[in-house]
Amino acid sequence: MGGPERPRVLVLNGPNLNMLGTREPAVYGTQTLRDVEALVTGRAQELGLDVDCSQSNHEGVLIDTLHAARSTHAGLVLNAGGLTHTSVVLRDAVAASELPFVEVHITNVHAREPFRHTSLLSDLAQAVIVGAGVRGYVFGLEVLHDLLRPRP
Amino acid sequence: MGGPERPRVLVLNGPNLNMLGTREPAVYGTQTLRDVEALVTGRAQELGLDVDCSQSNHEGVLIDTLHAARSTHAGLVLNAGGLTHTSVVLRDAVAASELPFVEVHITNVHAREPFRHTSLLSDLAQAVIVGAGVRGYVFGLEVLHDLLRPRP
Amino acid sequence: MGGPERPRVLVLNGPNLNMLGTREPAVYGTQTLRDVEALVTGRAQELGLDVDCSQSNHEGVLIDTLHAARSTHAGLVLNAGGLTHTSVVLRDAVAASELPFVEVHITNVHAREPFRHTSLLSDLAQAVIVGAGVRGYVFGLEVLHDLLRPRP
Amino acid sequence: MGGPERPRVLVLNGPNLNMLGTREPAVYGTQTLRDVEALVTGRAQELGLDVDCSQSNHEGVLIDTLHAARSTHAGLVLNAGGLTHTSVVLRDAVAASELPFVEVHITNVHAREPFRHTSLLSDLAQAVIVGAGVRGYVFGLEVLHDLLRPRP
Amino acid sequence: MGGPERPRVLVLNGPNLNMLGTREPAVYGTQTLRDVEALVTGRAQELGLDVDCSQSNHEGVLIDTLHAARSTHAGLVLNAGGLTHTSVVLRDAVAASELPFVEVHITNVHAREPFRHTSLLSDLAQAVIVGAGVRGYVFGLEVLHDLLRPRP
Amino acid sequence: MGGPERPRVLVLNGPNLNMLGTREPAVYGTQTLRDVEALVTGRAQELGLDVDCSQSNHEGVLIDTLHAARSTHAGLVLNAGGLTHTSVVLRDAVAASELPFVEVHITNVHAREPFRHTSLLSDLAQAVIVGAGVRGYVFGLEVLHDLLRPRP
Amino acid sequence: MGGPERPRVLVLNGPNLNMLGTREPAVYGTQTLRDVEALVTGRAQELGLDVDCSQSNHEGVLIDTLHAARSTHAGLVLNAGGLTHTSVVLRDAVAASELPFVEVHITNVHAREPFRHTSLLSDLAQAVIVGAGVRGYVFGLEVLHDLLRPRP
Amino acid sequence: MGGPERPRVLVLNGPNLNMLGTREPAVYGTQTLRDVEALVTGRAQELGLDVDCSQSNHEGVLIDTLHAARSTHAGLVLNAGGLTHTSVVLRDAVAASELPFVEVHITNVHAREPFRHTSLLSDLAQAVIVGAGVRGYVFGLEVLHDLLRPRP
Amino acid sequence: MGGPERPRVLVLNGPNLNMLGTREPAVYGTQTLRDVEALVTGRAQELGLDVDCSQSNHEGVLIDTLHAARSTHAGLVLNAGGLTHTSVVLRDAVAASELPFVEVHITNVHAREPFRHTSLLSDLAQAVIVGAGVRGYVFGLEVLHDLLRPRP
Amino acid sequence: MGGPERPRVLVLNGPNLNMLGTREPAVYGTQTLRDVEALVTGRAQELGLDVDCSQSNHEGVLIDTLHAARSTHAGLVLNAGGLTHTSVVLRDAVAASELPFVEVHITNVHAREPFRHTSLLSDLAQAVIVGAGVRGYVFGLEVLHDLLRPRP
Amino acid sequence: MGGPERPRVLVLNGPNLNMLGTREPAVYGTQTLRDVEALVTGRAQELGLDVDCSQSNHEGVLIDTLHAARSTHAGLVLNAGGLTHTSVVLRDAVAASELPFVEVHITNVHAREPFRHTSLLSDLAQAVIVGAGVRGYVFGLEVLHDLLRPRP
Amino acid sequence: MGGPERPRVLVLNGPNLNMLGTREPAVYGTQTLRDVEALVTGRAQELGLDVDCSQSNHEGVLIDTLHAARSTHAGLVLNAGGLTHTSVVLRDAVAASELPFVEVHITNVHAREPFRHTSLLSDLAQAVIVGAGVRGYVFGLEVLHDLLRPRP
Repeated sequence: MGGPERPRVLVLNGPNLNMLGTREPAVYGTQTLRDVEALVTGRAQELGLDVDCSQSNHEGVLIDTLHAARSTHAGLVLNAGGLTHTSVVLRDAVAASELPFVEVHITNVHAREPFRHTSLLSDLAQAVIVGAGVRGYVFGLEVLHDLLRPRP
Repeated sequence: MGGPERPRVLVLNGPNLNMLGTREPAVYGTQTLRDVEALVTGRAQELGLDVDCSQSNHEGVLIDTLHAARSTHAGLVLNAGGLTHTSVVLRDAVAASELPFVEVHITNVHAREPFRHTSLLSDLAQAVIVGAGVRGYVFGLEVLHDLLRPRP
Repeated sequence: MGGPERPRVLVLNGPNLNMLGTREPAVYGTQTLRDVEALVTGRAQELGLDVDCSQSNHEGVLIDTLHAARSTHAGLVLNAGGLTHTSVVLRDAVAASELPFVEVHITNVHAREPFRHTSLLSDLAQAVIVGAGVRGYVFGLEVLHDLLRPRP
Repeated sequence: MGGPERPRVLVLNGPNLNMLGTREPAVYGTQTLRDVEALVTGRAQELGLDVDCSQSNHEGVLIDTLHAARSTHAGLVLNAGGLTHTSVVLRDAVAASELPFVEVHITNVHAREPFRHTSLLSDLAQAVIVGAGVRGYVFGLEVLHDLLRPRP
Repeated sequence: MGGPERPRVLVLNGPNLNMLGTREPAVYGTQTLRDVEALVTGRAQELGLDVDCSQSNHEGVLIDTLHAARSTHAGLVLNAGGLTHTSVVLRDAVAASELPFVEVHITNVHAREPFRHTSLLSDLAQAVIVGAGVRGYVFGLEVLHDLLRPRP
Repeated sequence: MGGPERPRVLVLNGPNLNMLGTREPAVYGTQTLRDVEALVTGRAQELGLDVDCSQSNHEGVLIDTLHAARSTHAGLVLNAGGLTHTSVVLRDAVAASELPFVEVHITNVHAREPFRHTSLLSDLAQAVIVGAGVRGYVFGLEVLHDLLRPRP
Repeated sequence: MGGPERPRVLVLNGPNLNMLGTREPAVYGTQTLRDVEALVTGRAQELGLDVDCSQSNHEGVLIDTLHAARSTHAGLVLNAGGLTHTSVVLRDAVAASELPFVEVHITNVHAREPFRHTSLLSDLAQAVIVGAGVRGYVFGLEVLHDLLRPRP
Repeated sequence: MGGPERPRVLVLNGPNLNMLGTREPAVYGTQTLRDVEALVTGRAQELGLDVDCSQSNHEGVLIDTLHAARSTHAGLVLNAGGLTHTSVVLRDAVAASELPFVEVHITNVHAREPFRHTSLLSDLAQAVIVGAGVRGYVFGLEVLHDLLRPRP
Repeated sequence: MGGPERPRVLVLNGPNLNMLGTREPAVYGTQTLRDVEALVTGRAQELGLDVDCSQSNHEGVLIDTLHAARSTHAGLVLNAGGLTHTSVVLRDAVAASELPFVEVHITNVHAREPFRHTSLLSDLAQAVIVGAGVRGYVFGLEVLHDLLRPRP
Repeated sequence: MGGPERPRVLVLNGPNLNMLGTREPAVYGTQTLRDVEALVTGRAQELGLDVDCSQSNHEGVLIDTLHAARSTHAGLVLNAGGLTHTSVVLRDAVAASELPFVEVHITNVHAREPFRHTSLLSDLAQAVIVGAGVRGYVFGLEVLHDLLRPRP
Repeated sequence: MGGPERPRVLVLNGPNLNMLGTREPAVYGTQTLRDVEALVTGRAQELGLDVDCSQSNHEGVLIDTLHAARSTHAGLVLNAGGLTHTSVVLRDAVAASELPFVEVHITNVHAREPFRHTSLLSDLAQAVIVGAGVRGYVFGLEVLHDLLRPRP
Repeated sequence: MGGPERPRVLVLNGPNLNMLGTREPAVYGTQTLRDVEALVTGRAQELGLDVDCSQSNHEGVLIDTLHAARSTHAGLVLNAGGLTHTSVVLRDAVAASELPFVEVHITNVHAREPFRHTSLLSDLAQAVIVGAGVRGYVFGLEVLHDLLRPRP
């Protein structure tokens, strides 16, 4: 059951994640972004959460989306792709949204190039899930579900 | 008095500054971007300057705006937000505009995270105004006014 | 149902994690290590995994445990506490065990002291779960469950 | 002669390169982007290559273009301008395109500011041409021509 | 109107600023320290502030002056010259004075030698004004005026 | 006078300090650990403190000891030897003990190898005593005595 | 007993320490420099030492004092305040005095800003006492007393 | 046509380049230095340039050659091999020759060990050609040809 | 011939070396620790040395062993495994033993991860043998044999 | 012969140089500052230079002296002692004096502590003389003599 | 016994090693290069290896020698002296020779100046022998002997 | 007067110094190496020193020369040119010569590129003379003359 008062969560994917399933499948797996969104929506259903999925290759669009989400959503699962490591403005937009969020990376960024070992987002995040594949998005939903459920 | 030959100045705000007044008011104050633009326009009027105000969350739009300003404006007041610390292309666009400019930050960036302590713009700027709140934009106008006024 | 052929997973906690629930509850929460082990055992039951839980404050004991697990277990959930950031010998023992493993930290280490931002384990891990509280151990089990289940 | 089976190459220019010929001609020369495209198209004709030229000041547009080129082009000549030094997402998009590419810079970046001395693209490139002026694009085409011609 | 209860501001200049107008006029301009003090006093008059101007080449004298100002002044405009980049004891004296202050530099220190790019004062300052010439002192007064005026 | 309610202090020595008096006497002096413990016990008697002395070469044993001390002692004098510079887990154990503590080093570590110039403990300590020889332990007791004495 | 042959010790305080008791009492405590000097003189009396106390905000005066002390004193307790971290000339003057000395800091400098974590004096010192409050000066006297007492 | 007044260009190869075709052909290709010299000579012929080719494993010989070329040649194509990254004296000799030059590397040095990512020559070069194989020498000739041809 | 006065050497292996022959045989070879000890004992016999072999995964046990060896052995062959790179306390224990020692690593640590390129032991060692396989222990014995033999 | 038009040179010594001959004679030699001044005056006489000698332990006094010398002297020999390595304000005062100067150090600063290896003065100096003992001052005079003598 | 098919090994010494026995005998011992070559030749004889010894102070000659050895020798013992730390071209020549090699240093370079702690050769070497005196060359031969002997 | 027992000094110039007077005369002046050698020989004559002048562009030749000078000369004036900053083997050869030496640079290296600010020779030198032009060689002779003259 879930009335209109169900928490609404934004699942936001950044640059190049539209290429999931196509780009380097040995690294990123064969599931497409469509598959991920189906998986996430299914699990959200089970958890009693409403979910919106969005992706953009444009930093500015991601920022606009985060600004808008401030008044429409209650939590955020964010895979910012390569912007994770470089974008102060995305960090600022996440902070400006004032949403609790979980940072997700499909691959284990710590086993890749050194410039992927630092994140401008992690210190603001509720949790960080790295290398768990597309299941990381589901873990993100579950962390938010815990956080957003009403306390007795 | 100022006829059509009055110097025209561009006041350009970068990512997240549309959230002024909403985002972390304890840090950024309660004045909105609209308030800032009114303040700036009023002061420009007094100084005999024409002024245009523009804001974008999109780095590319900011660059396009700077390219266009090259032939339409005589000076620039620029708060590039988080792009200040990371964007070589914005720096290049400012240089390509060949406009004298004043870099403005509403908050004291030196008292915030270390990645806000460096600027890719400052060495090109005429002046840098930090932590003076929205009044910093007015100071920027005044510096440009001095610079642009005809020398006897 | 799970016969003796069920995969056996080791959940290994390092120094100071015996203090869970006691030490700085505002940071680490109020659940004790006993509670975590009960939670993990319950979830393992559901997933059809056998699980052993172990904790030690002694690096040498952790290494001995990892060596022994090489021939008795099929996967590892590891929260090495502060050794994460300093212990090459623990890293070597994890590598020597040749077990797939998930690195777990209860708190968001990225929001704490700089010396907690680097890990000598992460590049070897299957996945890294940070800041998800004690639920991180459950996520670890689930990642291993995916990995260890027979492929058709 | 070149039928529809001629290799198709994308010549992609990044931010501020639309200002060629206008911006700091002492540094970048007096040829416009239009001139460069004419030069490149002429040389491609001689080499039996089809060529498309594109430029954008928007990182997101460049990424979209690279994603699309994956299935329509066989090689890439890329001058990413200032994004060369900062953009992990552009790097990821180039990698996702799986196109062999030549990195080109009109000026000698090694003789300019220190932040222009590092590139996030070079280790992925087939070749890097620096300081050869607009002729660098032609050299890029020639390298790709060698690479793409059928081996007996 | 301004009775004895008008806020009193200290304008303090550090080493070598007595050479203003003489030393490298191409860099620092042709106005002397006397001119600056006249400018500042005039503007203070307009703002309803009392102002004292002081300069010393002796770090110890500057510290003594700051200690004394603690009980006699309400705000500080400080151009510490080269001590800005090196003097922990001056920083400590400013902190000990417990005065709100504006840091001023006549030239754009960010366009000069690297050792002028760091300041031991900025993170304590209310605002920092760089490169606005002697007008920077006036901006400093205005920031203090805003801060010190009675709130209704 | 001191009944059973006298504050109880733990004096804890880390690796290699059992070699005092034997190991490099030119550096560490000729007093043995036994001598130090006698000195400390005598001074504690005078100050009205109960004192327990412990030493181990095993990091894990030191951690166990600190955990236990949490509920049995009121303060800590700690010479962690070489673990001072490397052990995050010992730091965590000291923090978990929630005891006020004084860090002591017999020799002047600042006059030795660079890797002895940093401490993972000092920022948590009440006080740090370096180079005062075995008298440093006595100073540690005195600092704790001040801290633990009942305030009127 | 103590004739004119009693060792004479200089207790020298550097910049800003005249503000003790006034400046940030939450950090530095409420005792004034006068109180410290009384405490030190009393303890010196007990130890059979003569003591002179001096303070200056002027680096040059501190150097002059150290030069003079070379022939009049037998030991030094030195709190150089912020000069500790920056002044090579003070270090040189201490070395030129050829006096054994104890470096004292009232607060725990290791728990403050990073620029307070290094000292240009410590490697020359007999002992370093940090964070023990004004009692640190007394500890300094006691270390010197041990050092200066005649050996049988 | 080319009379004795044709520009003369020096193609200079440094240490280990005599091993071309033999050393690691998977990295450097199968063409020998002889092949390269034939290719270069042929292309020079077409461009109306005279060309001399020289190689040495001896830094001193390379320097002597550069000094001599100062009065006999008009341009330089230089592959300094591993000296590129370490030799200040070679840099000085190139500068002393006052010849415009193109720096060439057969392989993509940016995709190799970090110590090959810096060059002591690049900031002095007219152009830098990396990873274009032996064709890089031809590109070098072409850049010089442009540079040296008489301007109308 | 070798009476009880034959020099006695300790061959001490650190963490994970009990896994020799099992752990990553492609890296460490197929010989077990037992094989190594037999090899070493045999060669010691030939050299007229007595030898004891010991291994532990516990840093504390290694330290205790080194302290004890101070009065029972005349030399040390030490493979400290991963502790080589991190353990100041092991370094201190080796120094406290006052035994001449040879540092041995079976693999070429310089060709492995960067954190294996530094050693806290090497500057204290007589000799360092790297990458010579298990034969490195024999070389260690030979170096000690030279050192310990009576000089005429 | 030397009329009033003889060039006048200032020989300026910084902190601690009044201790020459007394302080660490093994390092600085046995000649006093008085001896140096006599030596310098004698040599100046020979060279036809007027010379003034000055020394201060006070940075502020040195700055005042340099400001005054701007209009009274034609050249400067400067041994700034430990201020060489730390004082931006002294550097600024030297620059403000607009005097050609020679930097002198009696000892070889490159063979001493690392913090003596950098100078804030050297890049402004005409020449730098290090380790030539007190003769360095004479060399300084000779360099200035060459520079200041009238060119035919 | 060994016929003409015996493996031939090159023992190559770099700059300054001709001074062995003369240069700083306290550091390098009293054996001359001649002694070393006799020792090596003797041991080679025992091992059934042919050996050639060569030394040069000229980097270029060392490179020529390594190139020639590629087709005449089967292994290399190399003491490159100070070139070890700086010469990329020597590294390249060793790699071009494709010979397995052992890097030898007579003294313990890790106990000397920091610039001797890094090697441009070690990651390519089979083994590295440091501080074993001239015996290190013999160890090098033995490692090569193991490597070069025919496997059954 | 000077019989055969007069001290003999070697004046040794490194790479590119044969180009003096030709290479960048604005930087290095118009005097040739021949002029320098005449100047030096003349001054040596006056000082009662025998002098030999030598120059090479070959590092190996410089090393051979230094080895030979060990038994034929009593002191060294050395301008190693660009090798100063990079050559460990030249440093080793200077040390092996056991000659007291003065390091000379004609230009002020501290005012040039950063890689010229470090020297591998200076900490071994008696004195370092920088920026005094060719007169620096004469100063070098004078320092050696002082050093080598017989002490009564």
